Amino acid sequence: MPHRTAFFISDGTGITAETFANAILAQFEIKPHRIRLPFVDSVDKAHQAVHQINHSAKVDGSRPLVFTTVVNMEVLAVLKSECKGMLIDMFGTFIAPLEAELGIKSNHRVGRFSDVTRTQAYHDRIEAINFTLAHDDGQTHVDLANSDLILIGVSRSGKTPTSLYLAMQFGLKVSNYPLIPEDFERRQLPPALVPFKKKLFGLTIQAERLSEIRHERKANSRYASLVNCRYEVSEAEAMMRRAGVRWLSTTSKSIEEISTIILQEIKPERLDY
Amino acid sequence: MPHRTAFFISDGTGITAETFANAILAQFEIKPHRIRLPFVDSVDKAHQAVHQINHSAKVDGSRPLVFTTVVNMEVLAVLKSECKGMLIDMFGTFIAPLEAELGIKSNHRVGRFSDVTRTQAYHDRIEAINFTLAHDDGQTHVDLANSDLILIGVSRSGKTPTSLYLAMQFGLKVSNYPLIPEDFERRQLPPALVPFKKKLFGLTIQAERLSEIRHERKANSRYASLVNCRYEVSEAEAMMRRAGVRWLSTTSKSIEEISTIILQEIKPERLDY
Repeated sequence: MPHRTAFFISDGTGITAETFANAILAQFEIKPHRIRLPFVDSVDKAHQAVHQINHSAKVDGSRPLVFTTVVNMEVLAVLKSECKGMLIDMFGTFIAPLEAELGIKSNHRVGRFSDVTRTQAYHDRIEAINFTLAHDDGQTHVDLANSDLILIGVSRSGKTPTSLYLAMQFGLKVSNYPLIPEDFERRQLPPALVPFKKKLFGLTIQAERLSEIRHERKANSRYASLVNCRYEVSEAEAMMRRAGVRWLSTTSKSIEEISTIILQEIKPERLDY
Repeated sequence: MPHRTAFFISDGTGITAETFANAILAQFEIKPHRIRLPFVDSVDKAHQAVHQINHSAKVDGSRPLVFTTVVNMEVLAVLKSECKGMLIDMFGTFIAPLEAELGIKSNHRVGRFSDVTRTQAYHDRIEAINFTLAHDDGQTHVDLANSDLILIGVSRSGKTPTSLYLAMQFGLKVSNYPLIPEDFERRQLPPALVPFKKKLFGLTIQAERLSEIRHERKANSRYASLVNCRYEVSEAEAMMRRAGVRWLSTTSKSIEEISTIILQEIKPERLDY
């Protein structure tokens, strides 16, 4: 199979185009060379992009795959008429039938990420990231009541990356709180969390996998030992069961999968769906 | 215009479908009610989804918009034949022509986020998030050399959310380091950063906007005062200019735009494009 180059062209950041195009490319057993061309927002830049695409076509000896979400019609026209790649118009393909269905015209607004900084939604999202960071790993009890969600679990069960993902992607204020040996001895949830039981969601993990992850941090420690991991995991699960806290196992789940499952269970009020 | 419901249906998390579909919907002046149906990976669940869609059609008195990235052909067949919504097959639409172009069949693999947890790429991404978190706000000099990128700038110029976004979205290890009044008095970059000049990228911000942001944190403080913000911003910019550090203004840019511009400038080695 000839070598392929995939271009991601947008008049905005191109991040939406690229993420979605990569999901499509993942359906094929190919590893194209990838080139991102963001901010292609003028006829001039369109010509430069065409030049680069056509150069790749020549060097590779194969048509480049050109994924585009350009909404400016003049820019798109240059790409359509002059580029020697396979043009995959990811917006236009769906916008025309949607215009027909909805009976209204699209606004050809560039990108989801331009002009957003002064919107309330963007402000709230940045606030959510800051809140989540400040409430990582039980750092503070201040304002815990304003959490949309509080994740609990043993150290290295996946709380931190999941919390940050939920803040970044969905604008949720997520606190996370470790369950530690002191809690297991008391056989009680950390006292600070008791008033917020409805907001709690637990993450657990297979002891063997936990031990691997902890060994990467602190090799040959008691903390990372399988016997200790087994103890902590079983105590944490027993505690969550007693307290009636919903939980899931993160062992073979990505942060996207974990987050999606949590949102199905918790349905935070602030999320409009 | 009748009320509309938009469904996002996936056999995986549906996050890719939803993000992209929201970008398409943003092209229209409508605010549909949104319903996410993830993990629709069996004929049974497909029937349940159809039931929900057809119920919405009846209640709304209008065809729901059904965005799907389902790759399981049996599941898709149920949606296609039985749902009364406008089915927008976001994968299939592009996969058929790509199969023709590439001369190979697609693998119908579910989602980008399933089965990924044991891959090196996923492991590296989680590591990047942990690294970035540990290196937030100049917390540690340890391992600074392993940063793909080091962001510098005055307090509240946007370093932290940008760093986390770059880690989350692109798997980059990003340190960030504040420029503080002591640095301005010495008129030198923080000594710890000098060996890594090539990895530095500066964020600056309009003093008026900075003052607003700081007032949200510490109202009526000297820290937030416009006169102090003007001083810090002008000193930071002068320092970056002297040191030959590239920088951009974050004043009206989203973290996605900031990240995209930085990647165009820095082109970290670890990113394969």
